[in-house]
Amino acid sequence: MSAGGSLVVRHARLATMGAPQSASGETPLGVVEDGALVAIEGRIAWLGPDAELPLGVAAGAPVLDVGGRLVTPGLVDCHTHLCFDGERSGEFEQRAAGATYLELAAAGGGILSTVRATRAASDARLAELLERRLQRLASWGVTTCEVKSGYELTEVGERRLLGVIGRAGVRAEVQVRGTLLALHALPPEFADDRAGWVRAAAGLARARLAPMCDAFVERGAFTADEARAVFAAAREAGSATCLHADQLSAGGGAGLAAELGCRSAAHLERVDAAGIEALAKSGTVAVLLPTATWFIRERTYAPGRALMLANATIALATNANPGTAMTENVGLALTLAVLECGLTPAQALWAFTRGGAAALGLADRGRLAVGLRADLACFDAEGAAHLAWHAATPHLAWSALAGVLRATPGPSAACHS
Amino acid sequence: MSAGGSLVVRHARLATMGAPQSASGETPLGVVEDGALVAIEGRIAWLGPDAELPLGVAAGAPVLDVGGRLVTPGLVDCHTHLCFDGERSGEFEQRAAGATYLELAAAGGGILSTVRATRAASDARLAELLERRLQRLASWGVTTCEVKSGYELTEVGERRLLGVIGRAGVRAEVQVRGTLLALHALPPEFADDRAGWVRAAAGLARARLAPMCDAFVERGAFTADEARAVFAAAREAGSATCLHADQLSAGGGAGLAAELGCRSAAHLERVDAAGIEALAKSGTVAVLLPTATWFIRERTYAPGRALMLANATIALATNANPGTAMTENVGLALTLAVLECGLTPAQALWAFTRGGAAALGLADRGRLAVGLRADLACFDAEGAAHLAWHAATPHLAWSALAGVLRATPGPSAACHS
Repeated sequence: MSAGGSLVVRHARLATMGAPQSASGETPLGVVEDGALVAIEGRIAWLGPDAELPLGVAAGAPVLDVGGRLVTPGLVDCHTHLCFDGERSGEFEQRAAGATYLELAAAGGGILSTVRATRAASDARLAELLERRLQRLASWGVTTCEVKSGYELTEVGERRLLGVIGRAGVRAEVQVRGTLLALHALPPEFADDRAGWVRAAAGLARARLAPMCDAFVERGAFTADEARAVFAAAREAGSATCLHADQLSAGGGAGLAAELGCRSAAHLERVDAAGIEALAKSGTVAVLLPTATWFIRERTYAPGRALMLANATIALATNANPGTAMTENVGLALTLAVLECGLTPAQALWAFTRGGAAALGLADRGRLAVGLRADLACFDAEGAAHLAWHAATPHLAWSALAGVLRATPGPSAACHS
Repeated sequence: MSAGGSLVVRHARLATMGAPQSASGETPLGVVEDGALVAIEGRIAWLGPDAELPLGVAAGAPVLDVGGRLVTPGLVDCHTHLCFDGERSGEFEQRAAGATYLELAAAGGGILSTVRATRAASDARLAELLERRLQRLASWGVTTCEVKSGYELTEVGERRLLGVIGRAGVRAEVQVRGTLLALHALPPEFADDRAGWVRAAAGLARARLAPMCDAFVERGAFTADEARAVFAAAREAGSATCLHADQLSAGGGAGLAAELGCRSAAHLERVDAAGIEALAKSGTVAVLLPTATWFIRERTYAPGRALMLANATIALATNANPGTAMTENVGLALTLAVLECGLTPAQALWAFTRGGAAALGLADRGRLAVGLRADLACFDAEGAAHLAWHAATPHLAWSALAGVLRATPGPSAACHS
């Protein structure tokens, strides 16, 4: 990647996300009305009121007069499972008709059906599918996207997935961050040897194949102790950790994430008061994934408002994955966060930018400030409320990655996945 | 509009919607595998297995080899309120934070806030906004769209809206059908003269400004007797009727719709067993609008499955409107119908094509058969299940109106409404 481009944005409602998250009901957007922003060689060189725009900076760079439109940091989708092959629409249909997750898993469905299809797919096929999905995210203004492994569940296969993930994002013009999720489901080959797979997962963590290491701690998935073992290896190798916690049952996952110093804990549909307190104290980012709650017809959404009132840092992400949230529709996640998690539209947008960057430990993005990456999204809307109200509808006018305008196709681009 | 175009579709999964609706769990799509279809001058001239495609028909017409993709009748959105001006995102935000509909209405919000903005808008502005919204629907494969009046609530104003609606759809290449909805809310000018507005509404109905006449029968809106009076005038003038019924309270609205011979009854979140039975007996189409139930956080969805089991005819529509369902996302409606109304994906797609045409009384569309309009949608998907599973995501590959391929922009087209 080059050093980045230069451009000048004028007459924007600049949502800097510069203000710290506030649970008091104030907007956290840090808006500069009639603002201007100058990007030079990929970084933000100046921002402020348009009337104070210094003359002559970034001479020759494109000037975008956005006529009062909303300009935000590029969106950061901090939790996805988008590197997979295999259709699971039949399972979706059965689930909607009342089949339970366990019944579907017993019939060969669930995560392991995706594992079979992913193992059978070539590198090129996986890369092609992943790029198309990243392009759909890009069409909503996403400029940084986390993608987890976890759909091969062999040592060689998880390495392969993280390789595909690490090389992805070129065509979509998205910065991709991989996460090792070997503790996603027990591979069939290890059905009688849980300890063996946990050892293998620890080995993968030790190899530091990705900047972050995740684990799915849940009844029927992995235990706290198994996560502990793998996270110890990850930490030794210098990887950050994050946890799937308290999704389907209240298992103390949030407390565990805090105890283990995880950078983030995701899902939290069933987090209790002690878990909320623990997250707030530890600084572990609480990642809300309401699309999954909706898609699998759980009625209990993560208590976003309560988490904010406790001063936990909130992120919001799509959780796009074939089993429990098959959609890259960022607008849907924003509206669900408002309708079901108690966030204001502004808080939801903050959570999808600065919150997402915090969940990934990326201090150079997620807000607009001098010296940070010039990853930008311009929406054909006046504010965050419009994005949540005009629901599940793309509003992106343009976006830029490191100061370079992206040639992002609309979401109607061929989307067979 | 010209007589229409000619084209040949080859190697399609043709979902003819030819089979009658079936509640037995069978697919109602009436699929012709590896099918072909010939349109000549806007009408379907032949369809059947590709291997039997007659040679030499439609010589010189474009041939579209779709490689196994799903081809359906163009979608029919039989219930929208898309002719309006005015932003209601602030109200959405307040509602999400717990404000009730009545509180918002008392503060000047609700339908009457849209009425104020719509009255103040020029014809050109209303036409521009409506075309953009129709373009978004077209990007999901909608070729016929019903649009209701009801946001001016003066005699002159309702005429004006139906004029704007009647002229719309040219740029979006959508067939638009207007519906008079004078009984939408009591205009402030008639606050002390309900009978006066009902008389005015009956006068508008008698003028037959649109092929259909609707009324909102609900606590706080209009009574059965008021609807009766206006519908009598509509029937005299030769208009069909339809009813908003049983949305927020169980008021016997479905039974009323059946008794009055309405072509359709919409919403039905709170329809009871007697109402279901009445709809099935009368042939009144039951229109499901799950996006509204979702958007206003009602937890009770219309019982689509029970309606089908009782042999009522089902339609599914977006109900796109600024107050209770601000989205033209057809995919969201399909997925909600599956997740929340108990339809299979195939039934949801049937309800959005043949069901929608039935709700509008249009026998010339909504299914694929020789002699019908060649309104077509081709999806980058193998079946209905994919559309519902890969949620709220556009899958349209192309669409045609009366045999002419549409130059529909993607939904990322500027969408500030």
